[in-house]
Amino acid sequence: MSYVSPPDVAEDMLEQGTSKAELSTFQQLLRSTFAVFILGGATAMAIQATEETGIGLVGALVFPLGLTVVVLLSMELLTGNFALVPLAVLEGRAKLSGLLRSFGWVLAGHVIGGLLCAALFAALLTEFWTIDSGLLLNGFIESAEENTLRYQQMGAVAGIGLALLSGILCNWLVVLGVVMGMTSTSTTGKIMALWLPIAAFFYLGLEHAVVNLFVIPAGMFMGADVSIADWWIWNQIPVLIGNLIGGLVLLGLPVYLAYRQKQ
Amino acid sequence: MSYVSPPDVAEDMLEQGTSKAELSTFQQLLRSTFAVFILGGATAMAIQATEETGIGLVGALVFPLGLTVVVLLSMELLTGNFALVPLAVLEGRAKLSGLLRSFGWVLAGHVIGGLLCAALFAALLTEFWTIDSGLLLNGFIESAEENTLRYQQMGAVAGIGLALLSGILCNWLVVLGVVMGMTSTSTTGKIMALWLPIAAFFYLGLEHAVVNLFVIPAGMFMGADVSIADWWIWNQIPVLIGNLIGGLVLLGLPVYLAYRQKQ
Amino acid sequence: MSYVSPPDVAEDMLEQGTSKAELSTFQQLLRSTFAVFILGGATAMAIQATEETGIGLVGALVFPLGLTVVVLLSMELLTGNFALVPLAVLEGRAKLSGLLRSFGWVLAGHVIGGLLCAALFAALLTEFWTIDSGLLLNGFIESAEENTLRYQQMGAVAGIGLALLSGILCNWLVVLGVVMGMTSTSTTGKIMALWLPIAAFFYLGLEHAVVNLFVIPAGMFMGADVSIADWWIWNQIPVLIGNLIGGLVLLGLPVYLAYRQKQ
Amino acid sequence: MSYVSPPDVAEDMLEQGTSKAELSTFQQLLRSTFAVFILGGATAMAIQATEETGIGLVGALVFPLGLTVVVLLSMELLTGNFALVPLAVLEGRAKLSGLLRSFGWVLAGHVIGGLLCAALFAALLTEFWTIDSGLLLNGFIESAEENTLRYQQMGAVAGIGLALLSGILCNWLVVLGVVMGMTSTSTTGKIMALWLPIAAFFYLGLEHAVVNLFVIPAGMFMGADVSIADWWIWNQIPVLIGNLIGGLVLLGLPVYLAYRQKQ
Amino acid sequence: MSYVSPPDVAEDMLEQGTSKAELSTFQQLLRSTFAVFILGGATAMAIQATEETGIGLVGALVFPLGLTVVVLLSMELLTGNFALVPLAVLEGRAKLSGLLRSFGWVLAGHVIGGLLCAALFAALLTEFWTIDSGLLLNGFIESAEENTLRYQQMGAVAGIGLALLSGILCNWLVVLGVVMGMTSTSTTGKIMALWLPIAAFFYLGLEHAVVNLFVIPAGMFMGADVSIADWWIWNQIPVLIGNLIGGLVLLGLPVYLAYRQKQ
Repeated sequence: MSYVSPPDVAEDMLEQGTSKAELSTFQQLLRSTFAVFILGGATAMAIQATEETGIGLVGALVFPLGLTVVVLLSMELLTGNFALVPLAVLEGRAKLSGLLRSFGWVLAGHVIGGLLCAALFAALLTEFWTIDSGLLLNGFIESAEENTLRYQQMGAVAGIGLALLSGILCNWLVVLGVVMGMTSTSTTGKIMALWLPIAAFFYLGLEHAVVNLFVIPAGMFMGADVSIADWWIWNQIPVLIGNLIGGLVLLGLPVYLAYRQKQ
Repeated sequence: MSYVSPPDVAEDMLEQGTSKAELSTFQQLLRSTFAVFILGGATAMAIQATEETGIGLVGALVFPLGLTVVVLLSMELLTGNFALVPLAVLEGRAKLSGLLRSFGWVLAGHVIGGLLCAALFAALLTEFWTIDSGLLLNGFIESAEENTLRYQQMGAVAGIGLALLSGILCNWLVVLGVVMGMTSTSTTGKIMALWLPIAAFFYLGLEHAVVNLFVIPAGMFMGADVSIADWWIWNQIPVLIGNLIGGLVLLGLPVYLAYRQKQ
Repeated sequence: MSYVSPPDVAEDMLEQGTSKAELSTFQQLLRSTFAVFILGGATAMAIQATEETGIGLVGALVFPLGLTVVVLLSMELLTGNFALVPLAVLEGRAKLSGLLRSFGWVLAGHVIGGLLCAALFAALLTEFWTIDSGLLLNGFIESAEENTLRYQQMGAVAGIGLALLSGILCNWLVVLGVVMGMTSTSTTGKIMALWLPIAAFFYLGLEHAVVNLFVIPAGMFMGADVSIADWWIWNQIPVLIGNLIGGLVLLGLPVYLAYRQKQ
Repeated sequence: MSYVSPPDVAEDMLEQGTSKAELSTFQQLLRSTFAVFILGGATAMAIQATEETGIGLVGALVFPLGLTVVVLLSMELLTGNFALVPLAVLEGRAKLSGLLRSFGWVLAGHVIGGLLCAALFAALLTEFWTIDSGLLLNGFIESAEENTLRYQQMGAVAGIGLALLSGILCNWLVVLGVVMGMTSTSTTGKIMALWLPIAAFFYLGLEHAVVNLFVIPAGMFMGADVSIADWWIWNQIPVLIGNLIGGLVLLGLPVYLAYRQKQ
Repeated sequence: MSYVSPPDVAEDMLEQGTSKAELSTFQQLLRSTFAVFILGGATAMAIQATEETGIGLVGALVFPLGLTVVVLLSMELLTGNFALVPLAVLEGRAKLSGLLRSFGWVLAGHVIGGLLCAALFAALLTEFWTIDSGLLLNGFIESAEENTLRYQQMGAVAGIGLALLSGILCNWLVVLGVVMGMTSTSTTGKIMALWLPIAAFFYLGLEHAVVNLFVIPAGMFMGADVSIADWWIWNQIPVLIGNLIGGLVLLGLPVYLAYRQKQ
């Protein structure tokens, strides 16, 4: 009986949120750096699959590799914490300071890891900046430009609003994947349960802040016409806020409220 | 031994029907809103997959993501309740008032959630109503129009009759998926057992009332030439009735009668 | 340890054969009607998949959905009974009258269910007999005609001989699927073990009497140029005999003789 | 914990080799006849899949159906026995006479079953020798001719040497599949573990003696320009010897020596 | 509950590293020879799949067959040992001499096995050096030339630097696959968890020293214009160093540090 019933899933959400708020700073940094690295590798694979086959669905179906590793090895993912840690605070199991520590250090780890992983992939694909074109290289440059400049071209209100909305819908599906991974005590069950929600967000082109902390700088290192300000104003900041709203309001709270045990 | 034998499946059907009739109104609304949201996300993914590849089977094979989430997280789905709650009433385990409460509030939650999710997707895909064309956007508009206007064009008797028949056959397969999900105590087994019946209904183009509560308003919000009256007269009302008949007469009763234990 | 070793499979074959011979007439009718319905739905999906993609293998790979449901919900399938019930009679666990009752009532249920399901699909696809062409509709008509008229065109000896031979090879694989489903106590294992033998028979175009009790009348209801006599003489009767021979001689007896326990 | 650690796999290899040497002649004949039948069915499906799609990988990916049945139902396969029974002899658990009995009767069963299954498929595909062309029929004829005449055309030394080498590499992968099937106590695990080694040998076009005992006579019955002498001299005899060497030297002995327990 | 939590994975990493350092020289040679053989077979299948379909992703998705066998049968893989044995040394559970013995003998086994497997495949594909072209044969020649000459053409610093970087990123993913295989006690779970990290490294064209010990000599035996010096200077030596760095620094240490238990 590897199936975990929803009340136990809700309890698991609360416990994970609690322990994430208490994790040491070293572990928060280490695990969040690790997480963005593998999300980066999975994103590279997915972009290459999309570019090679010309079918976005193919890329989307290999992309969940990254979140699978993060979930199975219990690494730190800010967008998951957005949904789980606030529950622990609301239930009095964690303090607001713990939440802020978790969000801050995990974000820091993602920034560091994202830049490092992006630099390694940029060095590899540009062959130490001696070539400027290639299947995967072009895919990164296009992704970085599309995820920033198309919002900029829409103007401040619509552009930032759309990035925010895309971030909301994205993290509804990402946190759904995280929670679905809790519905099984078997490794196979976890993988199968989380796969398609994660594939769905990637396929629908929704904005995930942690993936973007790798993809956009990777594109920039490879020659995308995107400034640091473009990156953060038109994507990273609104997407972070959207991910927080979507993960907590559309997924974390409803699932938790539907099944929390009254003690 | 993760396999659940049919007599235990029948008992599980009865217990789920009983507990669904007793659920608090808050939970009925919360869980049914949640359910239509994820069905909406899965439908969006399936429509995009069909539009991108030009192969309906591909869309059908990713579509069951939605019902999988509903089943694994035990959310409320009206079309499933159509088959399960009447069994509990027939066996004297629930009252008719409980059945009517369940049907009413769950429908209300689906209407609310469907409209909200449709509005979010419409805002995203039309970029706040500034563009009116796109791969997925066109898919929604076509779906909304085809699922209503083609019945209207057939005239009242044939059109409503066909929508009713399509609803009957649809919920035979949807409830089959729900029941197949009960044949395993493992998460993997549940997913594998329910996947293809759900893919089949989508692939055969059959009418599912809860999906339509998202798809048709989504298409309308995106510019489909469908009125509220078109939506309910030519689709939603006959399909709801068809789903009730199909789920109960073609699936719920036969499986239950084949295996109920005489006490 | 979800694997079931062959001696236990042989014992399970005997027990299922015994209980099938003792089933009440109501249950035999109910469960056989149910079984042909879902085989019909799966066949419709498989025909559509073949017609849409132009690749028979794709249709074959979705087809086993039907038998999966029959096995997991322990419904009654005449072609399976052809192999299992005679074993119980040979071992003295069931009477010949029980075998004849089982074969008779289950066949009756398949005829009733096949006609009803065929009528529903015909009404749906012809939109109450107002249109006479369509992807899936054409597939049904072609199947019905090919499965009868090509034997007729070969003449009595060769045609009926070929239908018989095709029925023999078919039920070798169908009963293999049923028996493979007994090699696991997990739902996932059952599904995976039975999938490809069933896909193989469909892919090789072999004749399965129960599927034909749906497909041929469905095609006839949709306009296939096949008479009731054509249906039974050139297909149903020789295929039933072939299925009995193949299921029992090529599969049921060899597996049982290879592993029965001497008591 | 369905995973079986390698020392237990080695012990299982020894036990299976021992019991295979002790099996009654009736069971050796029955189980080896059964095994070649289902290998034949799987080969027919694989050839058709390759011919229909034009992609050899597709055929290779459905081909392992046959070995899966052989392993799950513990039937007798000469190429597996080539690796397992000698281990039992080397460890003093079986006698050389038992080995020779096993090899002899299992080969006899494969010859009988292969000819019978080939005759049934030939009758089916040629519609009792009235037609001489068809997708699958052509595939059989080509396979039979290619697997014999291309060695003949290379001359005795190179041709027989290449058939021998192909047989060596083939059975390295086939026995690997058999052994991988022992790494799990779950049916799903067995299927997944053995699938790709078997697909690999088929995809690489390597020569498997038992498959050839069906494919070559099937092609001959359908009209391939291959004599009985061609069949045995240019294929069957060198491939049998190659399979014995490959299964034992490249797979059975290394795995067993890596993990046998010193008692 | 087949899922293994990360602290137990970290403990398993340490134990495997310890026992690998203590393995007898005979076993180190036997198991490493076996491992490179099956990696070779899997690489042959993957190259053929890529060449046949023209889609690199297809080749990548079948490639992990090799590592799956290595993990399930606990064979010796130098690139895995690069991450696991140093952990045992750092924790005082193994001596540096044990580490050097392990690295040395396992490398020796890979060289021997790689050359032997390469020679067998070369003899097979060139039909004893009588033909010099063919789908898979060309694939091997291209792989051998591309993996050496393109680095040579970049000059010493950039070329060796790129091979080193490619080796670093490669073994980050390979060791991730090895570690993911430890997250489950079920065979199915191990296979599913390790599959995509391994597919990812192959798909991204990263350099794996053990695979190259087969692919490059195989290409050379088949006629690739690559000298022994080219092979080792431009590929094998920098890739070995890169694999050591990547496996240990990017994967082994971070996962171990994230979860080791303080005793």
